[in-house]
Amino acid sequence: MFVIGELINGMYASVARALQDKDKKAVQKLALDQIGAGADALDLNCGPASRQPAVDMPWLVETVQEVTATMLVLDSSKPQAVEAGLKAAKNPCMINSTTADKAKLDILVPLAIKYKARLIGLAMDSKGIPRDKDQRLELAATIVAACVDAGFPVRDLYLDPILLPVNVGQAQLAWILEAIREFRVISEPSPKTVVGLSNVSQGTRHRGLVNRAFLAMAVSAGLDAAILDPLDRELMDTMITAELLMNKQIFCDSYLEAYRKK
Amino acid sequence: MFVIGELINGMYASVARALQDKDKKAVQKLALDQIGAGADALDLNCGPASRQPAVDMPWLVETVQEVTATMLVLDSSKPQAVEAGLKAAKNPCMINSTTADKAKLDILVPLAIKYKARLIGLAMDSKGIPRDKDQRLELAATIVAACVDAGFPVRDLYLDPILLPVNVGQAQLAWILEAIREFRVISEPSPKTVVGLSNVSQGTRHRGLVNRAFLAMAVSAGLDAAILDPLDRELMDTMITAELLMNKQIFCDSYLEAYRKK
Repeated sequence: MFVIGELINGMYASVARALQDKDKKAVQKLALDQIGAGADALDLNCGPASRQPAVDMPWLVETVQEVTATMLVLDSSKPQAVEAGLKAAKNPCMINSTTADKAKLDILVPLAIKYKARLIGLAMDSKGIPRDKDQRLELAATIVAACVDAGFPVRDLYLDPILLPVNVGQAQLAWILEAIREFRVISEPSPKTVVGLSNVSQGTRHRGLVNRAFLAMAVSAGLDAAILDPLDRELMDTMITAELLMNKQIFCDSYLEAYRKK
Repeated sequence: MFVIGELINGMYASVARALQDKDKKAVQKLALDQIGAGADALDLNCGPASRQPAVDMPWLVETVQEVTATMLVLDSSKPQAVEAGLKAAKNPCMINSTTADKAKLDILVPLAIKYKARLIGLAMDSKGIPRDKDQRLELAATIVAACVDAGFPVRDLYLDPILLPVNVGQAQLAWILEAIREFRVISEPSPKTVVGLSNVSQGTRHRGLVNRAFLAMAVSAGLDAAILDPLDRELMDTMITAELLMNKQIFCDSYLEAYRKK
């Protein structure tokens, strides 16, 4: 599982404050803590309060890459903020995200190619969240086709089926797991799959439990990557164990420790 | 999920002692504790030390049904112990278990019909544990065919894909999950599926974690029943949450409490 740490996000008050005060240390600590806990990449999101995302995003990029060479996931709905981040980046990057809308694809796929970045594609468009699995597959296929047409390598595309909170989209979660299975057969080579895990538990009382159970299920459906909180140790234990059960980690008595050491 | 409590089993020293001393109170407490924790049925197994399973099994049956009307799961490889249990039972029963061997099927399927019991069918035969998914499907189909031929209702058949410990059969676990999916399409109406959950974690250091992760995966594969320790509260929380995510429980803030109250 490719783990994308979710904590550098301006929707958290401490990160919003760090952005405002240009407090590098606070952001760098969050970066190193997440990497220490097993993050393979770090999501960078200026948050809804950022008035200048095209300034804040490169600041986040520069701040984080002072302390690590880990992949940076530039998380913004504004293409100019994404591009400003890509320009500032020396680390490998992932763009988070395009939708299936032509206007977005026409800007973001060429950007991903130009900067050799990976790309997250959300199975949604300007009409909103898809209602069922077939709509998700259609939207995902649109994104794959746009990547193929533009010459973007599909193995660097991460399709996100749009995970809904269980208290909103309970009936859709089984379909979302099916979508994860089916996204992989849209093309050969396969696109990868990713979810924003915390969405599933939003507004629920037992968030950790809901996140852990869904993650285990998604791993058994073949999920490749997740945006999650790597400091949630029980969640990481569940992820490592789920991968072990799917034969993606070698079994030993100390498999948790072995995973964390590598 | 149909939860079969696993704790009344003579392989545990306290149960072996209760059997020897004919200590009804100890067995009845285990029965009531498991039901209180959410068991829908109780496995009864005299254990390897029992010299007279055809005497011990009916004693277990009589002892437990003095305090509850819950379904009893008569767990013995000896058909005469199973039949002695069935004769003694007033509660509804399940036979645990037949294999795909003709000699077993010829005895146990008619017994299940005679006593209106449900039946667990293990996807194995005298040649041992199946090596892959296709062998599991063949063995399961043999059991289903024997039930259909004898007039046993397939909806009362619980097929067990034979869960292996992760430290022994790691590469088989993904196939076992696929087998759970595919067993249901062997016939119409569908047979049900069951696993002996604790097997998956045998000999591992993080047993609870392994059990929980596999159970969540198996629920997403459509598992109908599991033999497990209902007193493991974290495991039951995971099961309830996994069923919630698969839309099998109604969401509310207090869904854990709601499940336990019903």
